[in-house]
Amino acid sequence: MSSLPSHNPYFNASGKDIWSLINESAAHAATQSDREIINLGQGFFSYSPPDFVIQAAKDALDVPLNNQYAHTRGKPSLLNALAKTYSKRYGREIKTDEILVTTGANEALLTILTGFIEKGDEVIVFEPFFDQYISNIELPGGKVVYVPLHPPKEISERNVKGSEWRVDYDELEAAITDKTKFILINTPHNPVGKIFNKEELTKIGDLAVKHNLLIVSDEVYENLYYGDDFPRIATLSPAFAERTFSIFSAGKSFAATGWRIGWVIGNAELIKYAALAHTRICFSSPAPLQEAVATAFDEVTKNQYFEKTRSEYKKKYEIFTKVWEELGLPYTVADGAYYLLVDFSKVKIPEDYEFPAEFKARAKDFRLAYWLINELGVVSIPPTEFYIKEHEHVAENLLRFALCKDNDVLEKAVVRLRELKKYL
Amino acid sequence: MSSLPSHNPYFNASGKDIWSLINESAAHAATQSDREIINLGQGFFSYSPPDFVIQAAKDALDVPLNNQYAHTRGKPSLLNALAKTYSKRYGREIKTDEILVTTGANEALLTILTGFIEKGDEVIVFEPFFDQYISNIELPGGKVVYVPLHPPKEISERNVKGSEWRVDYDELEAAITDKTKFILINTPHNPVGKIFNKEELTKIGDLAVKHNLLIVSDEVYENLYYGDDFPRIATLSPAFAERTFSIFSAGKSFAATGWRIGWVIGNAELIKYAALAHTRICFSSPAPLQEAVATAFDEVTKNQYFEKTRSEYKKKYEIFTKVWEELGLPYTVADGAYYLLVDFSKVKIPEDYEFPAEFKARAKDFRLAYWLINELGVVSIPPTEFYIKEHEHVAENLLRFALCKDNDVLEKAVVRLRELKKYL
Repeated sequence: MSSLPSHNPYFNASGKDIWSLINESAAHAATQSDREIINLGQGFFSYSPPDFVIQAAKDALDVPLNNQYAHTRGKPSLLNALAKTYSKRYGREIKTDEILVTTGANEALLTILTGFIEKGDEVIVFEPFFDQYISNIELPGGKVVYVPLHPPKEISERNVKGSEWRVDYDELEAAITDKTKFILINTPHNPVGKIFNKEELTKIGDLAVKHNLLIVSDEVYENLYYGDDFPRIATLSPAFAERTFSIFSAGKSFAATGWRIGWVIGNAELIKYAALAHTRICFSSPAPLQEAVATAFDEVTKNQYFEKTRSEYKKKYEIFTKVWEELGLPYTVADGAYYLLVDFSKVKIPEDYEFPAEFKARAKDFRLAYWLINELGVVSIPPTEFYIKEHEHVAENLLRFALCKDNDVLEKAVVRLRELKKYL
Repeated sequence: MSSLPSHNPYFNASGKDIWSLINESAAHAATQSDREIINLGQGFFSYSPPDFVIQAAKDALDVPLNNQYAHTRGKPSLLNALAKTYSKRYGREIKTDEILVTTGANEALLTILTGFIEKGDEVIVFEPFFDQYISNIELPGGKVVYVPLHPPKEISERNVKGSEWRVDYDELEAAITDKTKFILINTPHNPVGKIFNKEELTKIGDLAVKHNLLIVSDEVYENLYYGDDFPRIATLSPAFAERTFSIFSAGKSFAATGWRIGWVIGNAELIKYAALAHTRICFSSPAPLQEAVATAFDEVTKNQYFEKTRSEYKKKYEIFTKVWEELGLPYTVADGAYYLLVDFSKVKIPEDYEFPAEFKARAKDFRLAYWLINELGVVSIPPTEFYIKEHEHVAENLLRFALCKDNDVLEKAVVRLRELKKYL
């Protein structure tokens, strides 16, 4: 066996991706205890897409052509529905040639970067970052340059706002070199819950214009904002619009993370290179599910689905933040998305607690997460996974909880988490 | 606009992929004439997946978890159904850790190559090749080395057999260098229709063992063979099995090319690197459609679906080969898959016929295909797309017709094609 040809050394089979590691730990814990494991780790929904979306998918399956290859740019029905939807959201006419349908938001980012990155090009990423960003940059030959989002000093003392996690714009500009091709932002932000305001977006956009960079704005949580509106960098000036690719997700918008339908909106002259890359990576995206998403977007204008969802998520935050207030464990108030980042500095894990090697080798938050799974049966994600090694200390006391779960799941979690009192 | 950062030069927006070029020409022709365009070009089905498969998809959509992220390796239900199915087909126990579910067969090849290719590694591909192979090799940094499948000299004179398209094994061995990592085969073969027999597969496998190469066997048409059986290289010896990745497709097997569900079977120790690449390329594959395919595989053991499909396709070939006999235009008899490669040497296109630039610039078969779309309203694919420039002469008189269409579509095509008589 050892004599067979070697694999690409970029892929390391001994290291598990965070999702497999945490999900497998949760599955193992479930076999060790009678009590149900409550999974607030990975951001999948505990509930189904709404009935009108499921029905749209069933109807789509009945039409022969919906089961055959979609056009590589996307099914015309979905392109038209998206053009209509985003023309309203952007406040200008979006044409179908400014849209590319992809196989989920992850493949959206990969296609954009594959369409533009040449070996050695640099991409600026804010830390903490969604882990898939890194491979999406590195696989096409790009180099990741990390710029921190600085949390306020008092993060272990009091609840902080997303807006208090700050970009240092001098630091950002200093990170730009003649190799920089992209700045990648994520708003609403995973895991912080921060929504970049217009002033922040303008500063980032101005730097991109000044240094002639492209922008990728990962806006997969666009429908989940809890203030008055959601500012989009592509709408703030034509100079930003012409250099911005914005990424969106049916999975996040319709509670259908398993459907793998995403899309990109950007400059028609540029997006065609992402489309060429998409043709070669996935060829086309799941056709019946594209058709269903097209129908779903037509429906939401009538049934106020996104407005209702936002109300429901405000309720979920109400349910899930109460326990941290009781315990005196501070968190970052989420402006958007569906995560809560909680500071566990005050929680004391028993010193002789035994950890598997995969957790022992990592920062303190990995041990916190493991302990929480096994002692309280509650799954969360250790956010140092979203930092480079040197900066892990910023997040080593934090845990990320995903709130995209039924209310009764969140309520059960709250009951369990009250047990933390013993460990303060 | 011209001052914006440049795209990856690998992607050339002026060149269209063959599928877009031909489909757009067909769409244009439809606007120019009253008669319906009969599309035997791209290999999508003109009909729906069978009812039991559609019903399985609808049922899958009703289960909440089927709409959320599948495991990156595949849903357990599908992995189990595939293990059961291929244990029978391979004649040995296939375990679930030998299987990886992918987002279609195209992404299957890309994940395998991304998992193993290091910059400059060479991959041997037989010509004619499916066009996506080339980008799947080149995107991860590999170099394509072309080895011809030689058609018999009499290809313009008489019907020939798939088995008469021959590999010259000295030529194959001479193409192997110390950079070669993979030999990529396709059986049943698109566009030739050839099924590699055991002797041919053994010669290829022996060379792979001798030079310590990996093998990728693209077997997406595995269920469509018209002789007694379908030999698989991975079953011919343990030494072949341990180095072979075989690629399969729900799209081709269940007439659902738009579903984007494929899978790979291979050595558990190697396939994990393809799985790591898959996690970073697509993360996971469409979950409700995976569930549907799992159910479908359970059903086919009861309803003899594949056996019936093979009978139906024999009938399709009967319908569609008759006209070539009448016209005296020779073809390659298909052992498998659903294509027919017809020799048009005897057909004379009017000398003053006008061609658009995209067709004028290409080999004669492109002009034949364009002319056939516009004059007879029948769409085919020019196979020189599957050759490198220097070897286009081998196929410049051929056209590929896809027979994965309803019988009445094929019958209508036959009526139109009879008109060719005027041009002989």
